[in-house]
Amino acid sequence: MRKVYFDHAATTPVDPAVAELVMKYTTEHFGNPSSIHNFGREVKKAVEHAREQVVKAIGASHVGEIAFCSGGTEAANMAIRGAAYANKQKGNHIITTAVEHHCVLSTCEQLAKEGFEVTVLPVDQYGRVSVEDVRNALTDKTILVSIMHANNEVGTIMPIAEIGKMLKSQDRKIIFHTDAVQSIGKLPVNVDDLNVDILTFSGHKIYGPKGIGAMYLRRGTWWQPIMYGGGQERRRRPGTENAPGIIGLGKAVEIAVENREEYAEKLTKLREKLVDRVLNSIPNVKLNGHPTECIPGHASFCFEFIEGESMLLSLDMLGIAISSGSACTSGSLEPSHVLLAMGIPKEIAHGSLRVSMGKYNTEEDVDYFVDNLIPIIERLRKMSPLAGSASCTPCACASCDENKK
Amino acid sequence: MRKVYFDHAATTPVDPAVAELVMKYTTEHFGNPSSIHNFGREVKKAVEHAREQVVKAIGASHVGEIAFCSGGTEAANMAIRGAAYANKQKGNHIITTAVEHHCVLSTCEQLAKEGFEVTVLPVDQYGRVSVEDVRNALTDKTILVSIMHANNEVGTIMPIAEIGKMLKSQDRKIIFHTDAVQSIGKLPVNVDDLNVDILTFSGHKIYGPKGIGAMYLRRGTWWQPIMYGGGQERRRRPGTENAPGIIGLGKAVEIAVENREEYAEKLTKLREKLVDRVLNSIPNVKLNGHPTECIPGHASFCFEFIEGESMLLSLDMLGIAISSGSACTSGSLEPSHVLLAMGIPKEIAHGSLRVSMGKYNTEEDVDYFVDNLIPIIERLRKMSPLAGSASCTPCACASCDENKK
Repeated sequence: MRKVYFDHAATTPVDPAVAELVMKYTTEHFGNPSSIHNFGREVKKAVEHAREQVVKAIGASHVGEIAFCSGGTEAANMAIRGAAYANKQKGNHIITTAVEHHCVLSTCEQLAKEGFEVTVLPVDQYGRVSVEDVRNALTDKTILVSIMHANNEVGTIMPIAEIGKMLKSQDRKIIFHTDAVQSIGKLPVNVDDLNVDILTFSGHKIYGPKGIGAMYLRRGTWWQPIMYGGGQERRRRPGTENAPGIIGLGKAVEIAVENREEYAEKLTKLREKLVDRVLNSIPNVKLNGHPTECIPGHASFCFEFIEGESMLLSLDMLGIAISSGSACTSGSLEPSHVLLAMGIPKEIAHGSLRVSMGKYNTEEDVDYFVDNLIPIIERLRKMSPLAGSASCTPCACASCDENKK
Repeated sequence: MRKVYFDHAATTPVDPAVAELVMKYTTEHFGNPSSIHNFGREVKKAVEHAREQVVKAIGASHVGEIAFCSGGTEAANMAIRGAAYANKQKGNHIITTAVEHHCVLSTCEQLAKEGFEVTVLPVDQYGRVSVEDVRNALTDKTILVSIMHANNEVGTIMPIAEIGKMLKSQDRKIIFHTDAVQSIGKLPVNVDDLNVDILTFSGHKIYGPKGIGAMYLRRGTWWQPIMYGGGQERRRRPGTENAPGIIGLGKAVEIAVENREEYAEKLTKLREKLVDRVLNSIPNVKLNGHPTECIPGHASFCFEFIEGESMLLSLDMLGIAISSGSACTSGSLEPSHVLLAMGIPKEIAHGSLRVSMGKYNTEEDVDYFVDNLIPIIERLRKMSPLAGSASCTPCACASCDENKK
């Protein structure tokens, strides 16, 4: 059976050059990078090379600005709680948006329980927050703004550079964190251009290993660790360094940034074809997220009168791997908080499908997917008590007509 | 040049069977275990198999008692802070010992800053805490006791089962955590026999991967997560599961426990030979830690009038990898807190050397090490301003004479 992997926003295959390094530092060079003997030093050297690769990839200015940790979730916890705790004497107000990943939202909820004040900003129908809304939410207690670079469910790109610029123009220092897990390797990610103080990302979304992530912390930013132990990572993140993961991440981010333009161009074309075919061949479907301000290769749809999970399972039986939303909430029966925040009604949000393509996908994959999706949707709608017997009612979503143009 | 790796307490080589699995789940089966499609499900299955391997290895009763995380340090943070925060309505007193790993000590220091009361118990000359001292430290506010199973620097085994039994006999529930990073695979580790509620360990000390650890949490123990995000690990530890790490850890712990007796016997013999040769061929040397209640293959010495680091570097040039203490504090110039807690004077603690042997070491390795160590010590002592010109003064340590027997 043909296998089509369309779930790169959940995780990516590991690039062979990365896998080779992971293996090399799992077997041949296994030393603890903090050991001062030869077995340790040779690993330390490779770890520090990885740090330089990250510095170069995101336009940081110093290796001391990069701390490795166990993934995007830990990195976001580090960014937000580390900044919040370190600056609580200056204020207790944090701003974020309603469409962040749960690692940001749940962390902010926890901080709210601990006495911080959290403003969760709304987004427009495409999932974008406005610079004006961020500006209007600022108070003299605001210490931190955390807004994702690109959304993991609908792919919409946030105006990070503009928000960063506005925050920089304020009289007082407000730390700006962006979760770049979904954007790095697909969009230009430069910490100076984006005007961010903290930027976090993970390995396994950019053809790197799982269990590894990184936090960029601009020099001079007040911050404190959130875990306690040894002095690793310049006292920012204790625990024996996951050397194979770090070294793999370094290589992955190097490859991702080097090939980004070519990769983005390819994925943009694949997405255009896929969106075009889906919208033109299936009725009562809505493209979620921004039609153009969207990460390459990423498309989210809502199919009316259908449960996302039924589509997933039907597609899965044909070898097509796809998701309804975030893998991190796959156990939950709740509709996506992102889609709800975009104003999509609950019953329609339940019929969501996220397609996230990657570097090994082809036009044939797109055709295989759409050719199979059409009869699946037809069949599921026939079975659906919601769909009625004769015809479907038009989609009620705000952006629906526009998508059908 | 011959290479002798004698630093297994810092990290171990990865078992080939483990490395093969890590590679398989890094390349061939790369899915996100939380994805519900086939790519995810096949990885999920392997992750759950690993959880069963851990259950079996430590005598847990249910897979729901095991949560994977990024390593021993995170696991200890989870254990201690998770238990402390969840039980703070019941009391704020925590008991630990002066010789714990920094991931425990620093976590307790942080909790002390947050309003918890922490009792740090002293140890005897061998680095052992007494059951009586633990009992005497209990108050009606005590919610948690955290004591390591075996010390990472001197190898001394703590009376965990006895402390656990005493704690169980108390009128009120006191959670008992043991850091088993150094003991698992070398000593019998069964959560019921040890009478513990929480037990933590990592992959890379048992021939498994770096960047992975596990926490056993006995059913019915009040506890809360310390990181916030998705619903992974039964809502105990968010973030995409490090599947290759988890699967590798499962295999590593299975192998470690299956071969433990044979392995321990071999290492005990190697240690006897090494200790015997060192004590009999080098003057003014002290064996740190308990002479018999010590993890197999582990020996820590203090050589008077010498800096540990000079020994390390000299040995390193001959291909022998060894450490002075914990790799996690290798950047620090401070003498080991463990040795100081055992009553060893600062100037002698500086001359410490930790030998931690492993499954690939041989008697020839021991001979190569001791044969080279003898002239190195002689040479360094000649250069040392502390050693005097003619003869050395006898070691001042409490247990020194005994060691020379």
